[in-house]
Amino acid sequence: MAGNRSDARTAAQKLLAVADAFDGPGDGTLTLSDIAQRSGLPLSTTHRLVRDWVEWGGLDRDDDGRYRLGLRFFSLGVRAPTQRRMRAIARPFLDDLVDLTHQNVQLAVRDGLAALYLERRSAKGAVPIITEVGVRLPLHATGVGLVLLAHAPAEVFESVLAAGPRRYLPNTMTTEAELRPRLATVRSTGLATSLDEMTEHTYSVAAPVRGRSGEVVAAVSIVAHPDDRANREYPLAVRVAARGVSRALGWRG
Amino acid sequence: MAGNRSDARTAAQKLLAVADAFDGPGDGTLTLSDIAQRSGLPLSTTHRLVRDWVEWGGLDRDDDGRYRLGLRFFSLGVRAPTQRRMRAIARPFLDDLVDLTHQNVQLAVRDGLAALYLERRSAKGAVPIITEVGVRLPLHATGVGLVLLAHAPAEVFESVLAAGPRRYLPNTMTTEAELRPRLATVRSTGLATSLDEMTEHTYSVAAPVRGRSGEVVAAVSIVAHPDDRANREYPLAVRVAARGVSRALGWRG
Repeated sequence: MAGNRSDARTAAQKLLAVADAFDGPGDGTLTLSDIAQRSGLPLSTTHRLVRDWVEWGGLDRDDDGRYRLGLRFFSLGVRAPTQRRMRAIARPFLDDLVDLTHQNVQLAVRDGLAALYLERRSAKGAVPIITEVGVRLPLHATGVGLVLLAHAPAEVFESVLAAGPRRYLPNTMTTEAELRPRLATVRSTGLATSLDEMTEHTYSVAAPVRGRSGEVVAAVSIVAHPDDRANREYPLAVRVAARGVSRALGWRG
Repeated sequence: MAGNRSDARTAAQKLLAVADAFDGPGDGTLTLSDIAQRSGLPLSTTHRLVRDWVEWGGLDRDDDGRYRLGLRFFSLGVRAPTQRRMRAIARPFLDDLVDLTHQNVQLAVRDGLAALYLERRSAKGAVPIITEVGVRLPLHATGVGLVLLAHAPAEVFESVLAAGPRRYLPNTMTTEAELRPRLATVRSTGLATSLDEMTEHTYSVAAPVRGRSGEVVAAVSIVAHPDDRANREYPLAVRVAARGVSRALGWRG
């Protein structure tokens, strides 16, 4: 979409497109013309909508005229009830898992075609990982992502394939022939393992978290060094922790 | 504002008023008519704007027809660069303070007339506190709030007084005669202490965090049991931690 000719979006949709512009790559700061380009809006419209966001506290303007997401998104976002409840319930289980393994522990939910990280806890000295709270990573290339993908409606898998899964590292599986049996294994074993697929030198084991009615609502993982594959305790430990979170969420399976 | 007669708000402002409705009291879920009432919009307009938010992922609809803030706010909010940087930089200092004191440790910034909590870390067994990440509490009745108020522009203090500061507990100071000298003490000592003002059975010591150009950008506090006032180490420890965060933010004072 370029310019406002034949732009059928409502005023509300245009305003939200301005916020979406900040969801892309980069350091999180954008000029007015970056925003206009990413949102497909004329500069004048963008200027007006950005002003509305700034007035509301959703965007901040830097001294050098660049814009960034503001405090209002943070304030509303961290209080979003579903995520807040999930995080509050999961936190002690994640903390225990960190205490007992001295590794990284993560909690993610599916957000469209991505795994969105709600929590990440790391023991001192654990292997460095790129995830942090709020980051979205592809479903096909991470432990938690594979768990979420394995339990998503079939059309999510179709959309992932249609989008052309990226091969981040030689180990990344990207084809239907590779992924379909792998997801079946995740479903039958209750576990996804991933080695050097998204990030080098990381080994991840992930298990599903279920909600009250049995549906998979999140995934928990331990992320360790590949050498830690020799530790045969992690797969069962992450499944037990994920069950704990599920029980606390009301699962009675 | 009631109805759409003489409602001079732009479409964008009306859309944002719908999100603001979720900033009020309650469990975070609202019916369509709650939203209409809180945002001062006709039901039909509210219905249309809520649909835009739902489509975008900003609001979720429950099975029983109630609405709540959605994943999109969380996803954008936790990535807001200013808050993200501040939290990432402060985290190791806060963790160390928790490790060394076995108490609660908090980080807050000023959001208008409130202290907004960016981080809260608690040792096991620390005194229970009501704050959690994303919560806003009044400036005049908390340790971090008093630090932020002491260093805010004069008009912020005027606005706090004009709003009529609430006396939460017998100890809460609410008058200009009480607060003005107290804020001067905070500025001269680099420390705010608070005892049973917002919550019973809590003692808080807070110190300012400064940014690159010396301005106060946040406050750090230790929150402990009132008996811990006997521990004379906390005031200096919290000042040292706040200095550490300031240095890491680029302060060279």
